[in-house]
Amino acid sequence: MTSPMHWSRWGDPAKVHPVSASTRGLIEAFVGPVEERPTVALDDVALPPIGLAGDLLGGLRALVGDDHVLTDDESRVRHTRGKSTPDLLRIRGGDASDAPDAVVRPQGHDEVARVVRWCSDERVALVPFGGGTSVVGGLVARREGYAGTIALDLTRMKRLVAVDHESMTATLEPGLLGPEAEALLTSEGVTLGHHPQSFEYASIGGFAVTRSSGQASSGYGRFDSIVVALRVATPIGDLELGQSPSNASGPDLRELIMGSEGAFGVVTEVTVRVRNVPPVKVYEHWRFPSFLEGAAAMRALKQAGIAPTVLRLSDELETMVNLADPSSVGAESQPGCLMVTGYEGDQATVDRERSVVSAALSDLGGTSDGIDESWASGRYDGPYLRDSLLDIGVLVETLETVTYWSQIPALYEDVKTALAGSLGNPIVLCHISHVYETGCSLYFTVAVKMDGDGIDQWLAAKAAASDAIIAAGGSITHHHGVGTDHKPWLAQEIGPVGVEILRAVKDRLDPAGVLNPGVLVP
Amino acid sequence: MTSPMHWSRWGDPAKVHPVSASTRGLIEAFVGPVEERPTVALDDVALPPIGLAGDLLGGLRALVGDDHVLTDDESRVRHTRGKSTPDLLRIRGGDASDAPDAVVRPQGHDEVARVVRWCSDERVALVPFGGGTSVVGGLVARREGYAGTIALDLTRMKRLVAVDHESMTATLEPGLLGPEAEALLTSEGVTLGHHPQSFEYASIGGFAVTRSSGQASSGYGRFDSIVVALRVATPIGDLELGQSPSNASGPDLRELIMGSEGAFGVVTEVTVRVRNVPPVKVYEHWRFPSFLEGAAAMRALKQAGIAPTVLRLSDELETMVNLADPSSVGAESQPGCLMVTGYEGDQATVDRERSVVSAALSDLGGTSDGIDESWASGRYDGPYLRDSLLDIGVLVETLETVTYWSQIPALYEDVKTALAGSLGNPIVLCHISHVYETGCSLYFTVAVKMDGDGIDQWLAAKAAASDAIIAAGGSITHHHGVGTDHKPWLAQEIGPVGVEILRAVKDRLDPAGVLNPGVLVP
Repeated sequence: MTSPMHWSRWGDPAKVHPVSASTRGLIEAFVGPVEERPTVALDDVALPPIGLAGDLLGGLRALVGDDHVLTDDESRVRHTRGKSTPDLLRIRGGDASDAPDAVVRPQGHDEVARVVRWCSDERVALVPFGGGTSVVGGLVARREGYAGTIALDLTRMKRLVAVDHESMTATLEPGLLGPEAEALLTSEGVTLGHHPQSFEYASIGGFAVTRSSGQASSGYGRFDSIVVALRVATPIGDLELGQSPSNASGPDLRELIMGSEGAFGVVTEVTVRVRNVPPVKVYEHWRFPSFLEGAAAMRALKQAGIAPTVLRLSDELETMVNLADPSSVGAESQPGCLMVTGYEGDQATVDRERSVVSAALSDLGGTSDGIDESWASGRYDGPYLRDSLLDIGVLVETLETVTYWSQIPALYEDVKTALAGSLGNPIVLCHISHVYETGCSLYFTVAVKMDGDGIDQWLAAKAAASDAIIAAGGSITHHHGVGTDHKPWLAQEIGPVGVEILRAVKDRLDPAGVLNPGVLVP
Repeated sequence: MTSPMHWSRWGDPAKVHPVSASTRGLIEAFVGPVEERPTVALDDVALPPIGLAGDLLGGLRALVGDDHVLTDDESRVRHTRGKSTPDLLRIRGGDASDAPDAVVRPQGHDEVARVVRWCSDERVALVPFGGGTSVVGGLVARREGYAGTIALDLTRMKRLVAVDHESMTATLEPGLLGPEAEALLTSEGVTLGHHPQSFEYASIGGFAVTRSSGQASSGYGRFDSIVVALRVATPIGDLELGQSPSNASGPDLRELIMGSEGAFGVVTEVTVRVRNVPPVKVYEHWRFPSFLEGAAAMRALKQAGIAPTVLRLSDELETMVNLADPSSVGAESQPGCLMVTGYEGDQATVDRERSVVSAALSDLGGTSDGIDESWASGRYDGPYLRDSLLDIGVLVETLETVTYWSQIPALYEDVKTALAGSLGNPIVLCHISHVYETGCSLYFTVAVKMDGDGIDQWLAAKAAASDAIIAAGGSITHHHGVGTDHKPWLAQEIGPVGVEILRAVKDRLDPAGVLNPGVLVP
């Protein structure tokens, strides 16, 4: 099972390893000489005093039990912010000023519902906390005007509540991390097939409320298309949605909870569509002369209804530095653009689909580089590399967007131009990992020599890129979510009437405004 | 192009023809002797006086032009209610008490936006009117408390605004009826593939705001999955949604407008995903020993990812009376259950898919009855048969629901039991025409000898069936929508917190409550 997440880095401390000499050489060729950056020790992190009054802490203990209201320093540090690069830079620098006053760990829907109502009554801000993997400031609640702030840690809620093998659905509690959910489901012979890069540390509840999208989204769909039912605790009562896969019973309110990022209620159960565990998984490398030719091929596959389970394309620079396999960054570079195709199913289905796709890709100008046995094993390793680069003073962060196919070339260029304009001479890599009939995502990885603590440097670049995304007609986020970081651009994307809809729902469900205050709603 | 809809019947008056002797014989064998029921002439329909004051009519004329504010009797009758059986029975009896005071026909988004704001300012109720095909009371607005009621007829708004052949999207105005939209799209080589039974008379705007689902939904998807962007005029301003196919930019507000049935705003442009016009369409008949065995086969296809474009299954009684082809009702009856499979695409794709599906269906207990050349041509004819049966005193209506596969057998039995309990000895036919990996729709056709004017008789039966649907865990509607008829059961389906969400959005977007008052929001 997954080891606990490091408090100031991504993932399992045992998996951290320094940047190799070859990678460092490649980086320095781009950004110039770099140097080690020390980080503070856990004991040296500066925590704010606990703001919650003793009687309020007592009230929480009465709700969930003494053992499940934590106020020790380490628990508070571990529930401070998420895992964006600015989040990491702040905590590496010893800044835990956004720490919650207490970590509250309820067990089951009824306890969550009681805590939610209590927080509303007592004006205590509540930040739902699953895996803590937000990269958009989704765990940085506004503190002013509240009697205190708690992190509502959902990781005691790890049950597989039910499996319906006929309907192919499963009901999961929100605190299950990706591997935990898959292990429970696999024991029933089924799978979610949802594998975002954060898979090892992100939670089922987080997947739902942020509209997560996995690396096999072409075959399994986005998480919002996998969810069929939701149970939600709000300050004004419980909400149970999803009597059917789809219906015409008015607006689809599931689609309002998905994407709500804890601002409308706390999701306590998620019912998902599952599939049988595929006996065969084959991943293959293809090569295209250029990014746009590769993108056109992806578009052709999707619009012909023959896209495989995994479909991913790196641009020329990402292909050159081999970021698709973080353990090999800096190894022998390759020409053109790398595409990864993946097929999952029984042998006959995999063979049939692979044959159809391969014929199409060849016709579309691709060349097969053969089976890649190792692709799936390395696909969660990107964030480890980021930590190791931060260690040597290289600022690294990612950002992503999505739009319609005809707007993709301009959006791609505009974002690169904006990043270059802000950062001078950054390394900007890009890939497409999620395709639709009408459009696709663009996922950028940016690296540059760190200037000062890197925070203001990145925030300026991020703002420039976000402005470019909105100006080019893209969405401010394809799968990272809104949090606090994307709010100004969300407001531009959905316009003032859209903002009023979010505010209206927020005001009605959370009249005291205690749920993840400052997150999502502009 | 489509002929105008008859004012008191479905569709093209030229297509009306009496029930054949064989059909009448079959009906009488079930329900006993029937007799002709006269209907009133258009001149004898009783209209309420025009309630809108002259200065308000003048205000409307100033907004859209004198020619586009209609107050003549025929225009008012033609915009009275929709096409449910109770709607037809009332208008056949000369009751036009729900007629609007005036019919207003704006041209373009800006005119719609001005009328919407004016209605909000003047407290004039506004009923958006596209094809007028609602079967759930979606056009029967509450009148009390308003300075008058207008039908906002959108059928001057029939432009194909844009086609993006690369992204495979098209932007359509809401007043286009199904065949009009398809004709414009076909001239561009593309298609929506959306063919509900109401196709010939329903509008693009109506498809969007009611979450319509077509007979080829297995291949093309529900209309809500086809829509990518929406432009909406609300009393507080314009709303433009859909910068991308999917995203994580907070809740998906498109899914709140879809299903809103004119209660949140008026949709003025709909951007849809299109596909290339398929050169080949093949429809085939299969036969299964029983309804549940056929349903299990459909489930197996969908869960294996190999469902064809059209997939439909009639139960034993529907198969026996051959309702799948309304022109042949009463012809030689057939054993078992009829399944229709349909394949659309190029010849190679159709051949490949048909081969895979046929092998699977044979393995699952099905027997092919061969190609059906005529299926597609008769698929919009059901409502004509209803009129002809009403003419001879046979009450006929349909209702539909959807749930998860494991709940389908109980839901099927419970609805039939409820209808029999209310109606005595009705004919109840059922089919499945929309399948999902996790569940399917059930569509019931009910016929019984009319008691009195038939209205109270049907409303009681409908209430009993609706109670049974909710009790069995189904959704109150799969694709007809909520309107006024389904409101009490929608409230049960989404619960009090769900109702509060709808009210909150309604209150914020439509503070004067003028948009289709009484529709949708419990």
